[in-house]
Amino acid sequence: MRISYDVMVDQFEKILLARGLSPSRAKLSATMVAQTSLEGVYTHGANRFPFMIKNIDTEVVDIHAQAVCVGRFGSLERWDGKRGLGNLNAHSCMERAIELAKESTIGCVALANTTHWMRPGTYGLMAAQQDCIGILWTNTLPLMAPWGGKETKLGNNPLVLAIPCNDGPVLVDAAMSLFSYGKLESYAREEKPLPVEGGFDTEGNLTKDAKEIIKSKLPLPIGFWKGSSLAIALDLIASALSGGRTTHSIASLPKESEVSQVFIAISLANLPDRAKIEEEISRSLADIKQSAPLDDAVPVRFPGENRLKVREENLRLGIPVDESVWEEILAL
Amino acid sequence: MRISYDVMVDQFEKILLARGLSPSRAKLSATMVAQTSLEGVYTHGANRFPFMIKNIDTEVVDIHAQAVCVGRFGSLERWDGKRGLGNLNAHSCMERAIELAKESTIGCVALANTTHWMRPGTYGLMAAQQDCIGILWTNTLPLMAPWGGKETKLGNNPLVLAIPCNDGPVLVDAAMSLFSYGKLESYAREEKPLPVEGGFDTEGNLTKDAKEIIKSKLPLPIGFWKGSSLAIALDLIASALSGGRTTHSIASLPKESEVSQVFIAISLANLPDRAKIEEEISRSLADIKQSAPLDDAVPVRFPGENRLKVREENLRLGIPVDESVWEEILAL
Repeated sequence: MRISYDVMVDQFEKILLARGLSPSRAKLSATMVAQTSLEGVYTHGANRFPFMIKNIDTEVVDIHAQAVCVGRFGSLERWDGKRGLGNLNAHSCMERAIELAKESTIGCVALANTTHWMRPGTYGLMAAQQDCIGILWTNTLPLMAPWGGKETKLGNNPLVLAIPCNDGPVLVDAAMSLFSYGKLESYAREEKPLPVEGGFDTEGNLTKDAKEIIKSKLPLPIGFWKGSSLAIALDLIASALSGGRTTHSIASLPKESEVSQVFIAISLANLPDRAKIEEEISRSLADIKQSAPLDDAVPVRFPGENRLKVREENLRLGIPVDESVWEEILAL
Repeated sequence: MRISYDVMVDQFEKILLARGLSPSRAKLSATMVAQTSLEGVYTHGANRFPFMIKNIDTEVVDIHAQAVCVGRFGSLERWDGKRGLGNLNAHSCMERAIELAKESTIGCVALANTTHWMRPGTYGLMAAQQDCIGILWTNTLPLMAPWGGKETKLGNNPLVLAIPCNDGPVLVDAAMSLFSYGKLESYAREEKPLPVEGGFDTEGNLTKDAKEIIKSKLPLPIGFWKGSSLAIALDLIASALSGGRTTHSIASLPKESEVSQVFIAISLANLPDRAKIEEEISRSLADIKQSAPLDDAVPVRFPGENRLKVREENLRLGIPVDESVWEEILAL
């Protein structure tokens, strides 16, 4: 089924208001979730909204808490998320990092004690809309083994890189695992092999069988040893800058909570040759799009290129939602 | 054969002095190259020194040029490398980014028009030695196809993340291609299959055959579509911040030159709870090292863990160098 964007926002807003969020905060949070589905990132929009509400109802999220600045150190600020709603906390911190970037060209906010931020790309788009480069990431509960190991100890620590430009923004939103558990479960349900080897089976062999990977709990990091190293470093940096928990420390909690995040913004408007920057980016993206494709039916795209097309289509036709998901939402 | 560290430094220094570098700059550049081999990164140390000298002799590198600051914008500076020697340019810019970080907690130097920086990790270690997080990368000439394409258009754009800590530093030094051409060539020479699929053959099938990948010029990005996206974003950010060339623009030059680099430093000493940060990092690294390994003979390590052991061994026994490489160096 398809649900109109406005109906979706209203429905999310109503549910959040009933949990005690103020009207303006309920509207903002609802809008961010609905925009995620609107732009085709269904896994992190409406599909994940019941999880967000469950976290509120079970007090993993403190719906009455708001992130606050706990210290300014030059062009970097530390914020305490106080276990408040993750997407609102991240929104506040990205907004502040952008302000710091307008002041000092580069600004950073490190956020401790926050909860799941839903779609990572949301905050990259915020930076790009303010003519800033966005570099941001979160740590998570353990989801992968370090390279060479067979115990789940590393987060998949999604990393976002956003670059404002006329054809874009360019938006990279990539977890350090090759496939998320959500993706593995959907392949397992459909009994389809993964397009490439996505993890180890319980014997330690690489496999395309999603069920085996879910059983072994050994999904692959991107680039094997490289993604494992990147995940370790992103986790340690987020913890160090924010003064918050590492993945290892999050693992001691009953549920994923009190995660650490970093928001870096760099203001291109502060630089002297904004028009030349645009030209260089635009030439580079045109070159990528003109690549001869491996499969003639699938043209090469730059990251984030499809976003506006999906958005326009879903605004016009309504946002695709599973009927069961929408019923679950109506019952919240 | 093994060459003592001091002999190696002296030899490199003599060769650089003969090319017209000042004594202090020749010493610094020679030291960085010798330290690279000393720490076991042989591909980017002595083995690459003849390439560095060839670039000087063919004027790809202007040995008389030095990087200069061309603009300060808050906590970010732009530098022009003037096609000077890449490792000295990168050293100057990392040094300056660290100074900016000491002032403002986070500092960034973006460098245009520079040449090959040799071992990326060198500058991450500089940051860590000054108690700074280091986040730095370079773009390169085209070496990979964008995901879905079959034309070489993307750089492998090595990314470094460095984190100071008592057991460390933690050092991630990872190109966005799974295997470098150097690595592919060494597997091809030894007629050994790659440990995992490392690229496409000329028919567009994934393969472990390094020779096929060298033929197709289609090495894999890390995490397939993800590494392709990351490489695109790193390139565009480096070009935008420095005002320098993108990979697409570098491709129009006869040789790799005038690359763009970003050096971000974040000073942990500026934060109020340095001791607690150390504890969190230390607990997390201990947890990773205690992972049950997939192969009992290969313990799990954190990135950079082996560095000091190799360094100590090579200081004691001398640095392993191919006899033919050392002869080539003696003849420069």
